[in-house]
Amino acid sequence: MPLKRSWVEGANDAGCPFPLNNLPCGVFSTPDGARRCGIAIGNRILDVTALEKTGLISLDGGPLLDQPRWNSVMAAGPAVWNALRLQLTKLLQEGAARHRAVEVHLVPLAGAQLHLPFQVVEYTDFYAGRHHAFNVGTMFRGAENALPPNWLHIPIGYNGRASSVVVSGTDVRRPWGQLKGPDDVVPRFAPSQRFDIELEMGAVVGLPSKSGQPVTVAEADAMIFGYVLLNDWSARDIQAWEYQPLGPFQSKATATTISPWIVMKAALEPFRISTPVREVPLLPHLAEPGPLLYDIDLDVGLTPEDAAETILSRTNYREMYYSAAQQLAHHTTAGCPMNTGDLLGSGTISGPLKESRGSLLELSWGGKEPLTLENGETRSFLHDNDIVTLRGVAKGDCYIIGFGDCTGRILPALADPYSRQG
Amino acid sequence: MPLKRSWVEGANDAGCPFPLNNLPCGVFSTPDGARRCGIAIGNRILDVTALEKTGLISLDGGPLLDQPRWNSVMAAGPAVWNALRLQLTKLLQEGAARHRAVEVHLVPLAGAQLHLPFQVVEYTDFYAGRHHAFNVGTMFRGAENALPPNWLHIPIGYNGRASSVVVSGTDVRRPWGQLKGPDDVVPRFAPSQRFDIELEMGAVVGLPSKSGQPVTVAEADAMIFGYVLLNDWSARDIQAWEYQPLGPFQSKATATTISPWIVMKAALEPFRISTPVREVPLLPHLAEPGPLLYDIDLDVGLTPEDAAETILSRTNYREMYYSAAQQLAHHTTAGCPMNTGDLLGSGTISGPLKESRGSLLELSWGGKEPLTLENGETRSFLHDNDIVTLRGVAKGDCYIIGFGDCTGRILPALADPYSRQG
Repeated sequence: MPLKRSWVEGANDAGCPFPLNNLPCGVFSTPDGARRCGIAIGNRILDVTALEKTGLISLDGGPLLDQPRWNSVMAAGPAVWNALRLQLTKLLQEGAARHRAVEVHLVPLAGAQLHLPFQVVEYTDFYAGRHHAFNVGTMFRGAENALPPNWLHIPIGYNGRASSVVVSGTDVRRPWGQLKGPDDVVPRFAPSQRFDIELEMGAVVGLPSKSGQPVTVAEADAMIFGYVLLNDWSARDIQAWEYQPLGPFQSKATATTISPWIVMKAALEPFRISTPVREVPLLPHLAEPGPLLYDIDLDVGLTPEDAAETILSRTNYREMYYSAAQQLAHHTTAGCPMNTGDLLGSGTISGPLKESRGSLLELSWGGKEPLTLENGETRSFLHDNDIVTLRGVAKGDCYIIGFGDCTGRILPALADPYSRQG
Repeated sequence: MPLKRSWVEGANDAGCPFPLNNLPCGVFSTPDGARRCGIAIGNRILDVTALEKTGLISLDGGPLLDQPRWNSVMAAGPAVWNALRLQLTKLLQEGAARHRAVEVHLVPLAGAQLHLPFQVVEYTDFYAGRHHAFNVGTMFRGAENALPPNWLHIPIGYNGRASSVVVSGTDVRRPWGQLKGPDDVVPRFAPSQRFDIELEMGAVVGLPSKSGQPVTVAEADAMIFGYVLLNDWSARDIQAWEYQPLGPFQSKATATTISPWIVMKAALEPFRISTPVREVPLLPHLAEPGPLLYDIDLDVGLTPEDAAETILSRTNYREMYYSAAQQLAHHTTAGCPMNTGDLLGSGTISGPLKESRGSLLELSWGGKEPLTLENGETRSFLHDNDIVTLRGVAKGDCYIIGFGDCTGRILPALADPYSRQG
């Protein structure tokens, strides 16, 4: 797949994450204006809300972009998604006739504030990375019992809190929680000391399912609008005390950060790749009709206060054992209705190597092997004021596809969470 | 608390669940009209959407009833909730001056269709009944290890699926799922054979929390708008195979049925009662400032096809170890934002006696002791075409408060869930 050349500044530059091939969907505001829908192109954002209003683009069933979220477009389905990409490509490609009319709707990426690109209706997080599940299982149960018996048969998942999903750049405050260490006689209520990251991808559901009707893996894939980067912040000490028998709850409820841009599935088509070889056969309803993962390079950077960034991990989305389409199909098996705006976290994406692990829990092996940063400090878990940045890049022959940074800074815990002063 | 007498037919009758003291909130439609908000009174529904439109009631920040859901009223807070009850009481009490003007907005309960009374934004289910947790724990781990170590310290909960919450009267289709019995070598995909009920109450969140800010138990109580009956349908065979390590997922995703009427907290005030004596002290942030449970008699009836109903169980909401306010406070400890329309299931409400257990799992002791119904049939779990009905009644000196039946019929599983014929 060659680079599609655009007349927009920066779009054809080597290393630009937003060439004409990408066209990712976001919501932005400028100091002088309201929130609106935008598409990243080169070093600009194209105000597609304005473009639809002026009639430069027109979508079946529209207006669909007259609100600061992509949900209406997501709900409209693949024909509208493709029509949008086609119309935008015509307007933005080199030599486009209406270049001048479009140009006035470009704003610099640098000065814009980015918001949640869609209304997250419900949020589900999975546990579908083979290496992550093995690492965590080994720490807790030993290598021989690392994988739960069901793990190779179903993509294990749990429901999270949509209300805690925030956009990249939002500060994340260290949570309080009930904790009980191995030496504590009784639990105590205190700030989490083992606050962690989880490097994930998120699949954004566009088309809803028919209520009560399970969907096939192929149907699930067709329902997905696009993908985001996702950091599922996790308080490991809260998790250890609370998670038996019904799973993680407050340990995962502080925040989940997503990238500001949803990369539409169409932009990722050239990077489709198969899941790894099955270790045991899957039941037919979870079998894949074709390659459903994507070859996306991922990394995690940690920037301590007043210091340079250290790259903690480099991995790839192809390391997942289950694809988002398989997860979505599993999600409907008992008749659960899935809706436009549902967000599915992949689960932590760890590779086979130590330096490709997607959480500090794994990187520091439960705190037993602290990491050394570029500035000489060490980390087992996050410190206050640390900034964590996830990045993702799909690499074509002559272009790349990016998601924008998925970043968050850790604020110190509240001194007294129940103080109502000020 | 005496009966408040009303001029509406049936409202003063002994045994009427909807006297003037109650005023529960629902959404209804008649064959000739759209969905609108209503209040049950006697054997009538008062069309409060029409009442607000004509100016007979007026709420700060209104119109709040111009949509077929109570969310705007719920979000408006206690001052508006109280103003609404006060205005309705004046209009509906015996001797009310504007009797004739109001009368035209009453429709018979019998002919109305009832819909979900509010938009369920997110749904959380707890595991906060002492007897239920002990019974289930004993079956799975033996009596000595029945309660997990955290159980007496935090109200254990997990996030469910808001999309699967339905109103009483909605049919519930037996789900398919991945199952692996003790004698199966590999899992299989089949209809659930151990489909069950859970008798619960649901708390409906009115006021949102401040993002990132934990709330006290007293603040949590003030955020709650009202209560519903709740049946958390559960596929025990799917649950057994999937729930380790991250909790129930598809086993709880088929449907959760709630009563058609939300009983506002104010109507339940006379029935406040304390939680049971603490077996170990709670940490201060979960301690109760006063009585936070309610004395509400509950029962479960099962009606087989073409047969009379058998009452399976009789219990009381006061059996819970944790109140909804404690659960909501715990839900915010890590900073999780709570919103208008969040629904919190209490957990299964089992009493200490065999005949007061709130699930078939407990009543039939995992299928080992099938129940005998009035018609001579036996049940370990639900059969196709069984109708399950939950009922709840708070008993005052001279009146009762009801929620309306919370009912659902089991439809047979789809023959082939992936067939797309017809």
